[in-house]
Amino acid sequence: MGEGGERGRRSGGRAARVAERAAPLAEGLRPVRAGLPGGQYRPLTEAGMATIHASALEALEVIGLANAPPSGVEILTGAGAVLGADGRIRFPRALVEDMLAKAARDLTLFARDEKFDLHLTGSHVHFGTAGAAVHIVDPVTLDYRDSTAQDLYDAARLVQHLDNVHFYQRTMVCRDVLDNFDMDVNTLYACLSGTAKHVGTSFSDPSHVAGCFDLLHVVAGGEAAWRARPFVSNSNCFVVPPMKFAEESCRVMEDCVRRGMPVLLLSAGQAGATAPAPIALAIVQAVAECLAGVVYVNAIQPGAPAIFGTWPFVSDLRTGAMSGGSAEQALLTAGCAQMHRFYGLPGGAASGISDSKLPDMQAGWEQGITNVLAGLSGLNMCYEAVGMHASLLGFCMESLVLGDDILGQVLRCVRGIDVTPDSTSIEAMKEVCLGGPGHYLGSGQTLGLMQTEYIYPAVGNRMSPKEWNEAGKPQLLDRAIARKNEILSKARSVIDPEIDRAIRARFNIQFR
Amino acid sequence: MGEGGERGRRSGGRAARVAERAAPLAEGLRPVRAGLPGGQYRPLTEAGMATIHASALEALEVIGLANAPPSGVEILTGAGAVLGADGRIRFPRALVEDMLAKAARDLTLFARDEKFDLHLTGSHVHFGTAGAAVHIVDPVTLDYRDSTAQDLYDAARLVQHLDNVHFYQRTMVCRDVLDNFDMDVNTLYACLSGTAKHVGTSFSDPSHVAGCFDLLHVVAGGEAAWRARPFVSNSNCFVVPPMKFAEESCRVMEDCVRRGMPVLLLSAGQAGATAPAPIALAIVQAVAECLAGVVYVNAIQPGAPAIFGTWPFVSDLRTGAMSGGSAEQALLTAGCAQMHRFYGLPGGAASGISDSKLPDMQAGWEQGITNVLAGLSGLNMCYEAVGMHASLLGFCMESLVLGDDILGQVLRCVRGIDVTPDSTSIEAMKEVCLGGPGHYLGSGQTLGLMQTEYIYPAVGNRMSPKEWNEAGKPQLLDRAIARKNEILSKARSVIDPEIDRAIRARFNIQFR
Repeated sequence: MGEGGERGRRSGGRAARVAERAAPLAEGLRPVRAGLPGGQYRPLTEAGMATIHASALEALEVIGLANAPPSGVEILTGAGAVLGADGRIRFPRALVEDMLAKAARDLTLFARDEKFDLHLTGSHVHFGTAGAAVHIVDPVTLDYRDSTAQDLYDAARLVQHLDNVHFYQRTMVCRDVLDNFDMDVNTLYACLSGTAKHVGTSFSDPSHVAGCFDLLHVVAGGEAAWRARPFVSNSNCFVVPPMKFAEESCRVMEDCVRRGMPVLLLSAGQAGATAPAPIALAIVQAVAECLAGVVYVNAIQPGAPAIFGTWPFVSDLRTGAMSGGSAEQALLTAGCAQMHRFYGLPGGAASGISDSKLPDMQAGWEQGITNVLAGLSGLNMCYEAVGMHASLLGFCMESLVLGDDILGQVLRCVRGIDVTPDSTSIEAMKEVCLGGPGHYLGSGQTLGLMQTEYIYPAVGNRMSPKEWNEAGKPQLLDRAIARKNEILSKARSVIDPEIDRAIRARFNIQFR
Repeated sequence: MGEGGERGRRSGGRAARVAERAAPLAEGLRPVRAGLPGGQYRPLTEAGMATIHASALEALEVIGLANAPPSGVEILTGAGAVLGADGRIRFPRALVEDMLAKAARDLTLFARDEKFDLHLTGSHVHFGTAGAAVHIVDPVTLDYRDSTAQDLYDAARLVQHLDNVHFYQRTMVCRDVLDNFDMDVNTLYACLSGTAKHVGTSFSDPSHVAGCFDLLHVVAGGEAAWRARPFVSNSNCFVVPPMKFAEESCRVMEDCVRRGMPVLLLSAGQAGATAPAPIALAIVQAVAECLAGVVYVNAIQPGAPAIFGTWPFVSDLRTGAMSGGSAEQALLTAGCAQMHRFYGLPGGAASGISDSKLPDMQAGWEQGITNVLAGLSGLNMCYEAVGMHASLLGFCMESLVLGDDILGQVLRCVRGIDVTPDSTSIEAMKEVCLGGPGHYLGSGQTLGLMQTEYIYPAVGNRMSPKEWNEAGKPQLLDRAIARKNEILSKARSVIDPEIDRAIRARFNIQFR
């Protein structure tokens, strides 16, 4: 960055920095981006991971899973699993190991705009939304009202324009859509209309899958185009912890696998309620359940795209209520991320949930701590990372906008400390200290790193008290509202108008 | 925890959990405490640390430090450092290595109440306050007013009663105390009066040290008692980065070392301003400066108690203003903590600063992220961890109370995931899944871990939206104000009344 240095020496200080800042930055030079490698944080030792793996295999062999649908019994026993007299399906460890060898690795989750493709490999980290909130949080009136299809579309439009939110999985239930098939269709299409990033969705009934794929094929431009770049994944709660299959969801999963849709194999136990209270054992159970899913998916189609979705949640053990913003949640998620790496499988889990009802200080620390540990543990897919309040029951648009700032900071932590000859040479210190200006302001090195190594909040405020006073004491929520409104005033549907007309003619779309 | 299990099986569910919760918990069983070992997060590789060390040694040998006071020149050259014609003192690497071998390790920072003693060894983590804020933040009126001696005393009383704040270093400037000596005395005595935890303070002039030690000896019950358990450390900015000694502070430091007071060797550069912009090089400079301090202290008295205080801060490079709540700050601090471990020296750095002017969501994520990374990196002394706003210019009592909740969560993360035969055995899963109740609520294992493995917020809110509505939508700040008032209404001076009278007769104490 010699040029910056020249300029710095000539004009010095603030003016030079402002000029530097105005220059547009090439994508590769941005300080953070999707897919940065994590893994600097490891709450489990190698021995700990091996112990968890061994217990999970034992659980699959000894306890197994109940309630497989008939189709699943056929698929699983056909592959070598054993149906017991008690109706449970047990998994010999050799079967699990064989299926792990066949499972998809280095998965790409496609986006309609390929610059948003997600490459799930190694410890590469991506943040996005998820959830099934039933309320929209209004942080001004403090109201919790029913969420709608329009809300889901609005949130999708926000995500499209928030750099640090890398994918958009369905965040809310469209409570204004009363027919169940229409709800699945509206959910899917609200996501797709708002953002060209990768989308995740659920299907509430096996009978809805075909119709939703009709819509997908229209959006994709035909089935072949869909299968070439499947841009939607199926968030699938194929188990009801502890250790039971969810029959309907399993049938949805079977259908999605055959139709080329990546499946998020989601085990969402709750430690102390539907999962064991010890954090390590909750991970054991989640791993066991997801390994059963790996066997299931790969028995249908070897190498079918699937995400190892160990999502153990936490109970507040005093009340049994869920707590998604706790330290225990952060540890569960980070430990799961390490198990994903242990198996070398693409994985996902929950981070960034707030138990607070509002985007307040509690929400900040809950989202900050859980997201930064998820990222640093190298979790491929950090779901529910922004916008979720009241332990997943409420979604807040303003919080989503603020969450983008949090994720910027989190991603900068994931990027870590560059130790290179340049970044550790004492030449810059010599220049400054030995006959130099005695400070690093405006130096070439400083200007060169200003935009490439340092990240700045979009909404967060770094003014001094004096500046802040003079600016009329701006408050965070007001700035978040302003940014939200600014984005929504400009963000259009990302669906081609002709396709949009065709879809609205054929399906009962309830948002505009 | 068989007893809990029995009760659980008998009465089941919520009633049993409430009963369990009411039982007092032995200190050793609490889920978090001071001195938990960190180190699960390592932003630097072994090679990276070696490179930073090599560059720091080179900087000491080639650049050296300017502006040593005459006494310091004598001490340092007497030990083998070299005074150059340019007035800079340079440090041969053999000298640094010799002094590192003599330096104090496994340091105990004493508290007046020995249950609060801090054992600075390995990667054991402690959180506390520090700073020199000049304002008190009123989060209701949004006012920033001048901080006073009374404020400093009030904050000390809060700290005494906040379990997760382990020490109290001076947080604010007593701006109502106009005489400089009186200010040092009031600062010291406000801290000591409010809390029996370890105290840190500064002396603004070498001539003030003797008088302040007179006060300390009275509080201790004589010089011998003081020297046996020195319960105050000297926060000492002995360098003015880059690579210059601070003459007055060095003379204070010399005096404190001889009087048996542990010294925090504080290098507070600001990356991009008084320290290099690359994070790695900012660490190099801080390490070099603190190594110079290690030589200095151990040349005065081999093995004198000292804390390796690499405190590089961050500039917002767009404006040059300080940013203490940024990701870059989190990385700087965590990288420094690793260097402390590299040398095996007790170390401290800054974490938990907010750039926000108020205890809002930004403050939450800034404090959450920086504190959790400091703790997980195994930083012995995490200073400025609570209450600091506006990049250290403002202190907020309500935020201090909220910060105690943050630190509870952070410490739970530091404690990590217990992987033991008990915590990974599938027996609990078998009991629940094979003919059992199908859930873990009220199980013996769940009840047994409720208070020992899970931590609950004191102020944070985990209600469902329904409960929250019915409770009148309580807001976080109101609950923080209530907890603050509750503590302050009960917390008395921890100084014996007779000693207090003697001190107030002899010194001009300006708080009540």
